[in-house]
Amino acid sequence: MRPLILIGTAGFLLGAAPPKLLTPNDIVTAAPPAAWRTINPDDLLVIDLKDGGRVVVQLAPAFAPIHVANIRGLARGQYWDGAAVYRLQDNYVAQWGNNDSKKGFPTGVVAKPPTEYSRPVKGLAVRPLGFADPYAPAAGYASGWPIAYSPKGGWANLAHCYGSVGVGRDLSPDTGTGGELYAVIGHGPRQLDRNIAVVGRVIEGIDRLSSLRRGTEALGFYKERSEDMPIVSTRLASQITAGERPSFQYMDTSSASFAQYLRLRANRHDQFYIRPAGGVDLCNVQVPVRRTP
Amino acid sequence: MRPLILIGTAGFLLGAAPPKLLTPNDIVTAAPPAAWRTINPDDLLVIDLKDGGRVVVQLAPAFAPIHVANIRGLARGQYWDGAAVYRLQDNYVAQWGNNDSKKGFPTGVVAKPPTEYSRPVKGLAVRPLGFADPYAPAAGYASGWPIAYSPKGGWANLAHCYGSVGVGRDLSPDTGTGGELYAVIGHGPRQLDRNIAVVGRVIEGIDRLSSLRRGTEALGFYKERSEDMPIVSTRLASQITAGERPSFQYMDTSSASFAQYLRLRANRHDQFYIRPAGGVDLCNVQVPVRRTP
Repeated sequence: MRPLILIGTAGFLLGAAPPKLLTPNDIVTAAPPAAWRTINPDDLLVIDLKDGGRVVVQLAPAFAPIHVANIRGLARGQYWDGAAVYRLQDNYVAQWGNNDSKKGFPTGVVAKPPTEYSRPVKGLAVRPLGFADPYAPAAGYASGWPIAYSPKGGWANLAHCYGSVGVGRDLSPDTGTGGELYAVIGHGPRQLDRNIAVVGRVIEGIDRLSSLRRGTEALGFYKERSEDMPIVSTRLASQITAGERPSFQYMDTSSASFAQYLRLRANRHDQFYIRPAGGVDLCNVQVPVRRTP
Repeated sequence: MRPLILIGTAGFLLGAAPPKLLTPNDIVTAAPPAAWRTINPDDLLVIDLKDGGRVVVQLAPAFAPIHVANIRGLARGQYWDGAAVYRLQDNYVAQWGNNDSKKGFPTGVVAKPPTEYSRPVKGLAVRPLGFADPYAPAAGYASGWPIAYSPKGGWANLAHCYGSVGVGRDLSPDTGTGGELYAVIGHGPRQLDRNIAVVGRVIEGIDRLSSLRRGTEALGFYKERSEDMPIVSTRLASQITAGERPSFQYMDTSSASFAQYLRLRANRHDQFYIRPAGGVDLCNVQVPVRRTP
């Protein structure tokens, strides 16, 4: 299936302007307001780095409610004061938090959360990817998130794609608290799916993490604390005064716009491409996100 | 997230040593000398950056012979003197060369090479991935490279994975010369497969490219030439005096060691993992490479 969507009808063979071939970005630009969903300010974690960079994480309470509640509590309780990015493993993760801190948790934070590595697929409006996924019986998108799922097994999990944010943990059954977080900065490490709690994704500023110097110790940890990138503040958007509060929208993955975007990502036919793949993998279709206009 | 891989020591439940669960890295460490192939020094492009970083690219003459011959000619003819990394697009590519140069090509460099986007699968010893690939009828490994292929169509192409190096080009039928190269620094952009010539992969120092500051212009180009990362030299390893010449080996993808490595990448069961995926995608099985011992 190679649908060439031609806009403008001027004759190509007759010497007129060549037909405009739609790109995935064209779909994003043309998507109507109804295709967008504004993100709740309690679902936005705003992390300001000492070098001036800002990283904004969208949280996913529908997938990891207890870990997300912990993260909100840690932000409100200023647990991350003095935190830093202390691990950069190339083609894998950037990790941050208060790794060596002896600080206690704010009231209400659950010290030993349940696994939350997956949830029931029931209740999710799933748009199937439409192509085979090597990691799970099926893959697709739900409520703006890339997911893997099993129609038979009844489970669904947030997939580890570029920018995904998960909860650092020690060996199972420890699931981590949310105090130490990582973001994927390389090829989607899908082998981590269902082995760790994914709590969201970076929607702005992932480049501020991905361009940090790689750590030289095992697993990409920085050798000296002086190499850390300090974090000057970690707040929910809801804690920021209205005038300065950032606001974002994601494209509704149930919308017709997203369906068309997905189809074009699998069938690139704009002028640079001469041979559309006719398929695409879950992580190569990043759900469009924008600042609220 | 700290994957603690425990190697039989202290007491575990009953005080006995815990079972040692093999990791993919264990297979690499234990692979016999016969599982390794030394890379020809004419197939190694050694790029030294002004900041002291070194990037080593393994070339793939079996897949793009004319472009690779061009790259060798450009290195020997010192075409890249004055070159720089001038484009960093997050989750996509780092690109370098002599973009604005009016310099002529050294003798023997083919100004308009044929496409070389794929080659016959015949003649390749293919180890199938064993899992579905959304971009092609099949995927696997041949002569140390990740490939996609069509048993029916008879073609094979080098896949765009993290670290893959391709030839920058303008719109088709221009195929580029090899003078401008890019390396993938994000999730494998497999949609580029068979749309552009892949000529190799970074086997050392990809982190020196992936951690460079992202460009702020469209497509990640740096706005000012002063932002470029200058390249102080680009040489084939064969041009470097024997005592200083770097040497690398890749794991033979036809070897029993690679078969076991591939199986373990698809079935992670070391202690950090509680639920092996039972599958893996082409780009998440990076062919092991090491310095020649």
